[in-house]
Amino acid sequence: MASEGEGAVELRNKQVTLKHHVSGFPSETDFELRTSSIKLKVPEGSSGVLLQNLYLSADPYILLRMRNINDPNHYFTSFTPGSVLGRVLDSRDPKFKKGDLVDGEIGWEEYTLVTAPETLSKIEYTDVPLSYCTGVLRLIGLTAYVGLFEICAPKKGEHVFVSAACGAVGHLVGQFAKLAGCYVVGSAGSKEKVDLLKNKLGFDEAFNYKEEQDLDAALRRYFPQGIDVYFENVGGKMLDAVLLNMRPHGRISVCGLISQYNTEPEGPKNLMQIIYKRIRMEGFVVWDYTSLYPKFLDWVLPHIREGKIFCIEDITEVKSRENRN
Amino acid sequence: MASEGEGAVELRNKQVTLKHHVSGFPSETDFELRTSSIKLKVPEGSSGVLLQNLYLSADPYILLRMRNINDPNHYFTSFTPGSVLGRVLDSRDPKFKKGDLVDGEIGWEEYTLVTAPETLSKIEYTDVPLSYCTGVLRLIGLTAYVGLFEICAPKKGEHVFVSAACGAVGHLVGQFAKLAGCYVVGSAGSKEKVDLLKNKLGFDEAFNYKEEQDLDAALRRYFPQGIDVYFENVGGKMLDAVLLNMRPHGRISVCGLISQYNTEPEGPKNLMQIIYKRIRMEGFVVWDYTSLYPKFLDWVLPHIREGKIFCIEDITEVKSRENRN
Repeated sequence: MASEGEGAVELRNKQVTLKHHVSGFPSETDFELRTSSIKLKVPEGSSGVLLQNLYLSADPYILLRMRNINDPNHYFTSFTPGSVLGRVLDSRDPKFKKGDLVDGEIGWEEYTLVTAPETLSKIEYTDVPLSYCTGVLRLIGLTAYVGLFEICAPKKGEHVFVSAACGAVGHLVGQFAKLAGCYVVGSAGSKEKVDLLKNKLGFDEAFNYKEEQDLDAALRRYFPQGIDVYFENVGGKMLDAVLLNMRPHGRISVCGLISQYNTEPEGPKNLMQIIYKRIRMEGFVVWDYTSLYPKFLDWVLPHIREGKIFCIEDITEVKSRENRN
Repeated sequence: MASEGEGAVELRNKQVTLKHHVSGFPSETDFELRTSSIKLKVPEGSSGVLLQNLYLSADPYILLRMRNINDPNHYFTSFTPGSVLGRVLDSRDPKFKKGDLVDGEIGWEEYTLVTAPETLSKIEYTDVPLSYCTGVLRLIGLTAYVGLFEICAPKKGEHVFVSAACGAVGHLVGQFAKLAGCYVVGSAGSKEKVDLLKNKLGFDEAFNYKEEQDLDAALRRYFPQGIDVYFENVGGKMLDAVLLNMRPHGRISVCGLISQYNTEPEGPKNLMQIIYKRIRMEGFVVWDYTSLYPKFLDWVLPHIREGKIFCIEDITEVKSRENRN
């Protein structure tokens, strides 16, 4: 349904917006599906870029951004999702031309007029699946890389544990740690995920935390000599069990605490282990490390091209799109 | 009561020993006062050193060592106190001669025959009070130095918070941070301690945590712009309040969690702040840093000689000693 108007084709633009800040689990009623229209031309006088959005990445952390954040020291502000990969349809910015593939943080919609094109990055490598550009090749991959290598610096042969190991970040962390020569164990929440970790992703071991009565005992089984590096995605009881099983001078990189997002937080009772074992526990936010992105790409692209990294993707295609180019 | 026997004077040696491992608070009945005798001569064939013990330092961490510790990864083993400063009475080790002042980890007794003299260190500086050698000039001081400078690396002008700020380590941490040009606030448990911190030890501010209904509000009052460095001695509710008030990229050095030693541990509920604020939290044990001792002495001795560091000492003199030299 394209219509001509003031010299430019007008396209229907479906958008998903957030009606209000979310508390607890989000539900469909927190969102609104709107249809507006957008001109297939960057307005004169603007230096913007018009994108057709191809992939939108829905990441767990987005839930936190849908909440009401009042803290000025907070590293992000409340917003609607998300990270988008799109194709340039029109541009008045000399750095982008029609047909370029770019990614950036944009709304959840079919087309976007980006008025601050400096927030976009051009995708220069096209010999890998395009969808990887919202995952392993962008913030998700950089998160795994930074949390593992910059925060924890695992040495060859060290013992690495990853929770939520089948998650967007976790499944990369485990594979990155294997590439660094570590012994790697992951936890996940179903038999299928555990099988995937062991049989497809090359983890040395994996277990279903829901089937373990005693997480401490489970970790002792897989790490009789203790854990050197823990990539923390979940928090709560798992963190408590990990603290008991850390080796002296262990490192914990805190990427997420997803078990705590929707419940009354459970503080770890075994914090004394931080002293006994001289543990370093460090939270990080990938946006602080974007300067490492080129270094990360140099490291990860060859591994991807050689088929050494397997990416789990869960892609939902929006079939109702009418205005496809 | 000295008696001659096989060519050597024999001295009465009062000893305090631990009867059994302690659980919860220690009480007098956990200890036994024994009287034995010791010869005022290192036996032939031994390469030991005989000490008259002058000062014994009773530190909070000793409580933890009085408990039953079964973890082979643990940084210390169960034992009886303590850190002792003594004078050499006789020696068959060429590195020590009669009259030398030494310190080391010895039993709680009047005299000790040290059969492994390599565990002793000679005290080379005698122009400062001798008792400082069990405190600011030894492990206590090194603990404050390492936890503040090595773990947290405060920059001039940064905002430092110290809990248990009138404690053996805490009162030094605050003064060291002032010497480094920081803004320093301490918490303590009585009006007298708060006055001492503000009027004698040079803290910028101090408060009595027992009088605060809301620790978060108290910290916001003293740190409207947030805390860069927290020297953690207490844990529990204070840690939770601190996490809410940390600045981005704040550092927490975990020296002790004394609020947790005798109760069911209270885990911090605000751990998400570790991510939001990119906080680094690191436990440490001073024994890992003994190689820094000479560097520490070079730094601290001039400040002590110039009267820039005030040491709180709580000395109990054992009056019943009969065999004093």
